[in-house]
Amino acid sequence: MSLIVQKYGGSSVADLDKVKSVACRIKSYVDQGHRLVAVVSAMGKTTDRLMEMARDIHPSPPDRELDMLLSTGEQVSIALLSMALNALGQEAIALTGGQAGIHTSNFHTKAKIITIDPQRIFRHLNENKVVIVAGFQGMSSDYDITTLGRGGSDTTACALAAALSAEYCEIFTDVNGVFTADPRIVPRARKINRISYDEMSEMANLGAKVLQIRSVDFSQVYGVKVQVRSTFSQEEGTWVEKMRSMEDVKVRAITHNGNVIKVVFLEVPDRPGIAALIFKELADCSVSVDMIIQSEGREDKKDVAFVISREDDNRLKKVVDNLSRKVQFKGVKLDEAVAKISIVGAGIASDPNIAYRMFHVLSEQEINIDMISTSNLRISCLIPNSSINEAVQALHKEFIEDEEVSIHEEL
Amino acid sequence: MSLIVQKYGGSSVADLDKVKSVACRIKSYVDQGHRLVAVVSAMGKTTDRLMEMARDIHPSPPDRELDMLLSTGEQVSIALLSMALNALGQEAIALTGGQAGIHTSNFHTKAKIITIDPQRIFRHLNENKVVIVAGFQGMSSDYDITTLGRGGSDTTACALAAALSAEYCEIFTDVNGVFTADPRIVPRARKINRISYDEMSEMANLGAKVLQIRSVDFSQVYGVKVQVRSTFSQEEGTWVEKMRSMEDVKVRAITHNGNVIKVVFLEVPDRPGIAALIFKELADCSVSVDMIIQSEGREDKKDVAFVISREDDNRLKKVVDNLSRKVQFKGVKLDEAVAKISIVGAGIASDPNIAYRMFHVLSEQEINIDMISTSNLRISCLIPNSSINEAVQALHKEFIEDEEVSIHEEL
Repeated sequence: MSLIVQKYGGSSVADLDKVKSVACRIKSYVDQGHRLVAVVSAMGKTTDRLMEMARDIHPSPPDRELDMLLSTGEQVSIALLSMALNALGQEAIALTGGQAGIHTSNFHTKAKIITIDPQRIFRHLNENKVVIVAGFQGMSSDYDITTLGRGGSDTTACALAAALSAEYCEIFTDVNGVFTADPRIVPRARKINRISYDEMSEMANLGAKVLQIRSVDFSQVYGVKVQVRSTFSQEEGTWVEKMRSMEDVKVRAITHNGNVIKVVFLEVPDRPGIAALIFKELADCSVSVDMIIQSEGREDKKDVAFVISREDDNRLKKVVDNLSRKVQFKGVKLDEAVAKISIVGAGIASDPNIAYRMFHVLSEQEINIDMISTSNLRISCLIPNSSINEAVQALHKEFIEDEEVSIHEEL
Repeated sequence: MSLIVQKYGGSSVADLDKVKSVACRIKSYVDQGHRLVAVVSAMGKTTDRLMEMARDIHPSPPDRELDMLLSTGEQVSIALLSMALNALGQEAIALTGGQAGIHTSNFHTKAKIITIDPQRIFRHLNENKVVIVAGFQGMSSDYDITTLGRGGSDTTACALAAALSAEYCEIFTDVNGVFTADPRIVPRARKINRISYDEMSEMANLGAKVLQIRSVDFSQVYGVKVQVRSTFSQEEGTWVEKMRSMEDVKVRAITHNGNVIKVVFLEVPDRPGIAALIFKELADCSVSVDMIIQSEGREDKKDVAFVISREDDNRLKKVVDNLSRKVQFKGVKLDEAVAKISIVGAGIASDPNIAYRMFHVLSEQEINIDMISTSNLRISCLIPNSSINEAVQALHKEFIEDEEVSIHEEL
C-alpha cells in the first residue's frame, strides 16, 4: 500500500461538479489500495476575487491580513472536497496548513516552509482517512496564518511528499503534462514523458507555468518523484525525476515568455561598484533580473540594461526611486514590446553548435535578437513580442521535430 | 480609557462600503480614547451561500468539515475590516476565534465556549491596536475549528466582554434596538430603552431575532452590560442589564414567531413513562419543545401535542423513527399553519388579570387559541398563522399603547 501525495490546482476544483469528480478520482486510488494525501488550491479565480476585494479596501493591504484573507480560498475547497469524499462513503478529513503541521517563516505572503510535523497526517492516514490539506498556506511561530506566494500549492504538495516519504507526488492540472512547446502555438508540440529536475526548474524559471519553480527545486533536494498530469484525463503525464546524465546533448523544449519588460538605466556613471549598487537595490526589493547587458558607453557614462518580469513593475518603481537618491543617471527606459524565447536541455551551452543553430534559425526568420543569456541548461534570446509565434514554431521544427526520438525517451 | 467590545452583524458588513463605514465608526471610538475589540460576523448572506454549496455536495455534510467551511465567512470579514482600519491609519489586527484564545467543546456546529485565554488580545490592545475577532467560532482541544451555532457572534462578543472585563458590549445590528413589537406589523411600536436580562432572554426565546438567547444568558451570569443598537445611526439603542424588581407588573413587549410547527403524536399508549420516553428522545436529538399538551384521550390512548421550531424539522424525523421502534402510536400529525404569540414582562404570570386581558383581546378579534403556555415572564398562545398581524396589533394596543409610560423607563 503506497502513500501518494496529489495536488489539485484551482482549475481542477473550479466548480462543485469538478470538486465531485476530483473526489471520484481520489476514491479510485483508495480503491486500488493506496493511501492518499490531497493538496488543494482555491476554487477557480477565488484568490483573484479576494485580492480585488482587498485592494478595494486598501491600496497595499497589510501582508498579515492579506494572508488571513487569501487563505480562506483553500479552506473552502478542502472542506468541500472532504465533504464530497464523505458523500462517496470514503472517510476524509480536511486540514488547514497549520493543522497539517506546516510551519513557516513569518514573512507573510511569501513565507518559506521551515519544517513539517507529519504526526497528525499520519494519525488520520492510520484511521484510513484520506487527508485533504490546504495548499499555499502554513502557520508561523506566532500561530498566524501565512501563505507561500502564488503557486505555493505545488510547493505544499512536494514538501508534504518529502516529509511523509511518499512514493511520488502527482500534480494535477488542466494540461496533460509538460510539452516541448506551447501547443496553442505549435500544433506538433508533444508531451515530454520524462524530464530532469534541472531541466524542469529551468523551464519553470523561463515561463512554463505548469509547475512552480520552488516546488521543483524542493523535489530535487528531497528526491521526490513528481508527475505532472491532467485532472480531466487518465493519460499518463510527465515524470520529473532524477535522470542519468547524457553525453548526447538535446534540446528538450522551446519555452517563451511575453510577460517581461526590458529596463535600461541610461547614462549611469562608469565607476566601480555602480553595477553592484543597482543590483543590490533590485535584490533588496525582490526584483528578479535576467539578461544583463552593460553597454560600452561613451566618456564616463554607460547604459545598463536588463529584463524583469512584468509582475515586478511596481517594485521597479521603488528601486528607481531609491537609486535616484544614491546615483546620478539620465533616466530609465522601459520596453514592453519584447519577449524572451529559450531552448532548454541539459548541457546545451557546452555545444556551440546548438547556439549557432538557434541564432541562425532566428535570423532566417529575420527576427532581430536584442539580448542573449545562457546557462548550462538553456539559451535565451530577447526578441520583439510580435515575432514570438514564428520564433517558437521555427525553433520547435529545428530542434524537436527534425531530431530523432530523444535518447532520454528511450531509457 | 474604557475597554468596549462591539459586535457587527452580517448586515453591518454586507458589502465593502459598509465594511469601510464600520471602520470609521470604530475609529471614532478610538479617537474618543476607548480601547476596542470588535467581533464581526460573515458578510451579508455569505453563511447561507456556503451552506448551499455544502448541501449541493453532501445532503448532510459532516459537522467538522462544515465548521471548516462556514468559519471562512468570518475570516474574510475580519481580514477586510482590519485592512479598512489600517487604511484609515488606525493599527488593527484580525484574529480567528482560535487565535483570540476562544477554546470550545468539540461539539461541531454547536460548540460551547469552555474558556477564553485573553492574553493575546490584551497584548495587541497594549500595542494600541484595535483587535478584530471572528465571531461565531472557536478552537477545540484538537486544534480544530468549531462554530457556536447560528447567531454565535453575539455569544462571542458577550463572552469576550466578560473575559476582558469590558465596560460594556455593544451589539450593532440593522435596527435601533429592542422594540415593543415588530415595527413592520405595528407602526406605533417603540424602542425599549432598558430591559432586564430575564425579559430579554424570554423575548429571544420567543422569536425576537435581535439578540441570541445564549448571549443574553451569558451576559446575565457574568454581569455584562449589553447595548443593542443600529450600525446605521448614532441613536442610543436598548440597554440589557440588571434591573431592580418591580412591584408593578408590566407587559414589556409583544413577540411573535411564525417559524414553528405543531406536532401531535396520535394515540400514544396511556401508561406511565411514555411522555418521559418521548421527551427524552426529543432532548437526545436536540429538539427544543414548547407548549406541551396531553389530551384527555379515550380508553387507554391519548394524543401528545407540542410545538417545535421549523429548523428542527429534520431532527424531528429522526425522533419519530427512533420512537416508532420503542412505542406503538397511530401516527404523527404536523400543522405548519400556526404561529406563537407572546406577551413578555417580569412577573406577568402572577397577575391573573393580564392573562384574562390577553385571551379577551384575542377572542374579540375572533382568533382561536389552540394551545397556551406560561412562565413567570410570559404568556404564549398558539394561534392560526393567518391571524398573526391582527393579534400583534391588538395586543400592542391593549398592553403598550394604552398604558402609561412604563415605570421601568423612568428609572
